[in-house]
Amino acid sequence: MVNERLVVVGGNAAGMSAAGQARRRRPKDDLSIVAFERGRYSSYSACGIPYWIGGEVTSMDELIARRPEEHIRAGVDLRMGCDVVGIDLQSRTVEVVEVDGGRRYAEPFDQLLLATGSTPYRPPIPGMDAPNVHGVQVFDDGVALRAELEGDGVRRVVVVGGGYIGLEIAEAMKRRGLEVTVVDRSGTPVGMFDEDVGGFIADAVRGLGIGLRLDAPVAAIETSAGRATAVRTEDGTTLPADLVVLGLGVRPNVGLATGAGIPTGTSGGIAVDQRMRTPVDGVWAAGDCVESMHRVSGRRVVVALGTHANKQGRVAGINLGGGYATFPGVIGTAVTKVCELEVARTGLSEREARSAGFEFVTASIDSSTRAGYFPGSRPIRVKMIAERRSGRLLGAQIVGREGAAKRIDVLATAIWNEMAVDEILSLDLSYAPPFGPVWDPVLVAARKAFAAVEDDIIAASGS
Amino acid sequence: MVNERLVVVGGNAAGMSAAGQARRRRPKDDLSIVAFERGRYSSYSACGIPYWIGGEVTSMDELIARRPEEHIRAGVDLRMGCDVVGIDLQSRTVEVVEVDGGRRYAEPFDQLLLATGSTPYRPPIPGMDAPNVHGVQVFDDGVALRAELEGDGVRRVVVVGGGYIGLEIAEAMKRRGLEVTVVDRSGTPVGMFDEDVGGFIADAVRGLGIGLRLDAPVAAIETSAGRATAVRTEDGTTLPADLVVLGLGVRPNVGLATGAGIPTGTSGGIAVDQRMRTPVDGVWAAGDCVESMHRVSGRRVVVALGTHANKQGRVAGINLGGGYATFPGVIGTAVTKVCELEVARTGLSEREARSAGFEFVTASIDSSTRAGYFPGSRPIRVKMIAERRSGRLLGAQIVGREGAAKRIDVLATAIWNEMAVDEILSLDLSYAPPFGPVWDPVLVAARKAFAAVEDDIIAASGS
Repeated sequence: MVNERLVVVGGNAAGMSAAGQARRRRPKDDLSIVAFERGRYSSYSACGIPYWIGGEVTSMDELIARRPEEHIRAGVDLRMGCDVVGIDLQSRTVEVVEVDGGRRYAEPFDQLLLATGSTPYRPPIPGMDAPNVHGVQVFDDGVALRAELEGDGVRRVVVVGGGYIGLEIAEAMKRRGLEVTVVDRSGTPVGMFDEDVGGFIADAVRGLGIGLRLDAPVAAIETSAGRATAVRTEDGTTLPADLVVLGLGVRPNVGLATGAGIPTGTSGGIAVDQRMRTPVDGVWAAGDCVESMHRVSGRRVVVALGTHANKQGRVAGINLGGGYATFPGVIGTAVTKVCELEVARTGLSEREARSAGFEFVTASIDSSTRAGYFPGSRPIRVKMIAERRSGRLLGAQIVGREGAAKRIDVLATAIWNEMAVDEILSLDLSYAPPFGPVWDPVLVAARKAFAAVEDDIIAASGS
Repeated sequence: MVNERLVVVGGNAAGMSAAGQARRRRPKDDLSIVAFERGRYSSYSACGIPYWIGGEVTSMDELIARRPEEHIRAGVDLRMGCDVVGIDLQSRTVEVVEVDGGRRYAEPFDQLLLATGSTPYRPPIPGMDAPNVHGVQVFDDGVALRAELEGDGVRRVVVVGGGYIGLEIAEAMKRRGLEVTVVDRSGTPVGMFDEDVGGFIADAVRGLGIGLRLDAPVAAIETSAGRATAVRTEDGTTLPADLVVLGLGVRPNVGLATGAGIPTGTSGGIAVDQRMRTPVDGVWAAGDCVESMHRVSGRRVVVALGTHANKQGRVAGINLGGGYATFPGVIGTAVTKVCELEVARTGLSEREARSAGFEFVTASIDSSTRAGYFPGSRPIRVKMIAERRSGRLLGAQIVGREGAAKRIDVLATAIWNEMAVDEILSLDLSYAPPFGPVWDPVLVAARKAFAAVEDDIIAASGS
């Protein structure tokens, strides 16, 4: 008889990080750990799916960090193909359905961790449920999509939604020699970037030979014999499609939680405290299904990213294991690549800053990734959004070629520490000609942003 | 008649940045600016010299940011080939000697900025003054070195001192097809890195086919007919050399200042306050010749780097121009490349931390620059030095292949903000498979360093 029973729902980043941490801290005779995963894969890199589809990663196996057997050997009773369909907080059991076979049973818990992930958003328009309309979030989605592509009926692909996953998939499809069109309701793709940066992304997408239709909300997916045959936009344009992929972002899977009365927050994700505890005693949550504090806006947000899922899982697992750890929130850092174009962001975009009530100035600079005279130097543009008067850096975006985007991490660290742009411009960053100009592009941007802050103060004084 | 006269001594990064800033803020009829440069070049990238010698940069012109004529057009009376040999604080004049021709005159000033730079260290051993023993610091040094190489008498080169400039020059010489040996008194090259990291550098140097003799202090340079012919180490080994290059670091040029009673600090550099003012009224200093506050050790240090020189020059120039700016110090960030090996550091090395009185734990991890499965992923090792108990990051070193070293800037920003390793591991850094693993290497290192801090606390408690 163990002292406590932990049930984990979800066998990927957050769930298995938590299970592993808890296991390491409490022996099997103290804590039993049962984990349920409804899919066929555990602990894989979902972010790697587009590269497997595009062929840059040759085998699906390379994306799998830990197989079910390995978790089982490590002392976690991971049960694959098991869907948790209900939580009874009274009896403290979860209701489990085996996907193959349909056996149904109740599993008791003392502690419960929800790591239920997220699902691609499917807007309520006609044709959305056709079998050749694919979201790409979990590994089984990727497997289904590849199976479809390996048949010979697919020539034309329409990607609905130009978010970064949509673009990664579009590029992968193009690499496979397909005819690809991306449709987006906004004026530039990847809405998490400001429009000036989005314009570069649009150019890069088109440069790949991918069709890009902007300001084009989708009205319906046309079907024939139950299968999608075209995407129709609100202006009446019809884009023939043998395959439709959704790139409209994801929604947290919270149905299981809300069905049991475990509350979601203002953002729609499961509400958790600093230690990843829900308000319900003994119930924890982590990963794509939870909401996080945005440290700049002060708002709750849902950010579905493997990096947060791993950290949150670790924090939950340490706490479940009797230790102490907290997840101090997010600042909206993200990076992606469109062909050779690298784009990255951190903090708030202009729209987000405005919506959070900030007033700000912006500054953009063009520079190079190495000393201008050094071979292999590539263009980089850095944009900064700085609060009026204080000069506090609220957000930054970087767009450029090889070696540009990872510089965003410097600005993420600066924002995390609430640095003002004039403090940033004094930072002792590394310099040598193969690695950057003597004034690193992020320092040049800080200098220009600081000038903008000063100009704004002078202008506001009326002098 | 102008209101004030500014004299700048030194026409490179610090001096001309200052002159430019002051000029922009005060018109010519308010402030006159005369700048003296004893060499033949102004505002160039001294850090680019090794790449010009090695042929990666094809023309010297590419290294020049601003020619004398451009400064003059911008309203700075830059006088090339003019050596300032004395300062008279009583009469408030500097004594100038024209290098060609020898005309000597006094130039009056109200404000004086010393940007006299630094000179390669020449230890007091026999033969050091032979004409084919070259230091490489200013552009004229590079020109002289190239002239020597373009004759046909040079086949064997010995570099005395394996600092990063020494290694950059050694690699450049090797690129030119010469036989190169580097001699260093320490057990690993580039003493600013700990020995474990230095070992990787040693391997990379040898991998280039460069001879490397460690633990080998130089006793003398042997000469024949006044020219160096060999380097003799203390153990009696003789290394034949047609050319000797010094890589023993540089010393600040402070003779002009001390000759006039302008004080140097504990580190040997000219002492300045936050605004780059010396203790002498109306006398300022910036660049390689000054000492800076090290924000981690709390000590004064001289760090000769273009990035500091530019920032300090900017600060001095803003203040001279009637504005307000400060230089808040350095944290010892540096980066270099040896063939394909990238190495970087920030904060304190183990030796420096010990010398500053810190007690600490260390942690090193091996990871990859991209997701492990992503094409082009390269090895990276991150080492952290964290203070006992507090876990404050005191220093970090990175060694790896392409894409590794610039990550040091994240840790530089973390050290600047006095972050502890457990705070660092929560940072919201960017993630996508082409840019890093889901746990970025710097986060993995922080996690391991945090575990080391905890282990140390437990061990110290005696439990």
